[in-house]
Amino acid sequence: MPTIFFHGPELDVEKKRELIKSFTESASRLTGIDKSAFVVYLRPSSTDNVGVGGELLKDRLEREKR
Amino acid sequence: MPTIFFHGPELDVEKKRELIKSFTESASRLTGIDKSAFVVYLRPSSTDNVGVGGELLKDRLEREKR
Amino acid sequence: MPTIFFHGPELDVEKKRELIKSFTESASRLTGIDKSAFVVYLRPSSTDNVGVGGELLKDRLEREKR
Amino acid sequence: MPTIFFHGPELDVEKKRELIKSFTESASRLTGIDKSAFVVYLRPSSTDNVGVGGELLKDRLEREKR
Amino acid sequence: MPTIFFHGPELDVEKKRELIKSFTESASRLTGIDKSAFVVYLRPSSTDNVGVGGELLKDRLEREKR
Amino acid sequence: MPTIFFHGPELDVEKKRELIKSFTESASRLTGIDKSAFVVYLRPSSTDNVGVGGELLKDRLEREKR
Repeated sequence: MPTIFFHGPELDVEKKRELIKSFTESASRLTGIDKSAFVVYLRPSSTDNVGVGGELLKDRLEREKR
Repeated sequence: MPTIFFHGPELDVEKKRELIKSFTESASRLTGIDKSAFVVYLRPSSTDNVGVGGELLKDRLEREKR
Repeated sequence: MPTIFFHGPELDVEKKRELIKSFTESASRLTGIDKSAFVVYLRPSSTDNVGVGGELLKDRLEREKR
Repeated sequence: MPTIFFHGPELDVEKKRELIKSFTESASRLTGIDKSAFVVYLRPSSTDNVGVGGELLKDRLEREKR
Repeated sequence: MPTIFFHGPELDVEKKRELIKSFTESASRLTGIDKSAFVVYLRPSSTDNVGVGGELLKDRLEREKR
Repeated sequence: MPTIFFHGPELDVEKKRELIKSFTESASRLTGIDKSAFVVYLRPSSTDNVGVGGELLKDRLEREKR
């Protein structure tokens, strides 16, 4: 029973549906394990809880908007 | 200092107490490491952030209720 | 820079390639974030380090073979 | 389908069996979710891949043996 | 592209900035990998989602205050 | 009792020592929590278990060497 974690941005519910479907189908096909055995956890982060290149993501996005 | 993560449904505080106590006691007994060294993180997910069998858990639960 | 963890069986290198490619392409398309920003970690487990339904996976697989 | 990760010492197979059984039974009883839905991942660490109190666990254990 | 997860208390934004900067600089210096390749995820927990020594952290903190 | 995970390359033992020391000191100073409460897990990956930009890290490194 494989498990997938996705740490990324918050998504709307339709995109969550598609992401879960797509990850599960790919992984099921490649491992040969039935789709029913897969669990996917989406772990969205707010931009003040992520750092990229040593910088808070929130700061980077604000800088890039300017 | 072992660490346990529980990814599951949200629980009321009394059940959280029991789960943490039970996990810690079992793991302490089986590893021989003192209970004081254990940390447990509960990571509840809303049903729109979990996929089971390629389907959003929220969708599955709604379907099952019908 | 989103991050994906896959906890599942050991795969041969060609299937690892395909899994990483497929996860990254799906997630890039649905988030709108460039593929270059994605990291995927494969975390294979031996069957004596996984439990399913309260049972060691290794024991279950041996039982099913009989 | 809840998921439990245990980051701790390497255990012999009989203790792995008991740990998985015990975690799953406690969590099933407290969540009301059937045992068959639980997955447990054991993630043993060698003592040169863990730090406690800012010190490599391997160094601490050697110091304590003296 | 290394990835760091910090499971700890909620911090104010200035401390988040410093933590991300400090983790990234240390890890970049010691691995020889450019800072731009590092991602840090802060995963704050409320005190009713952490257990220490078999006890809910929230209960321990309330007990210690008395 | 905060917990840090580092997913990155394998390091020699002296660098592991320094990384654990440095992460713990930074996090202790910024959270105000005593160093003794921190646990760090190093989770090195072989290059055939990491994907970057949709490509196996092993493949990328071989390509870059040419």
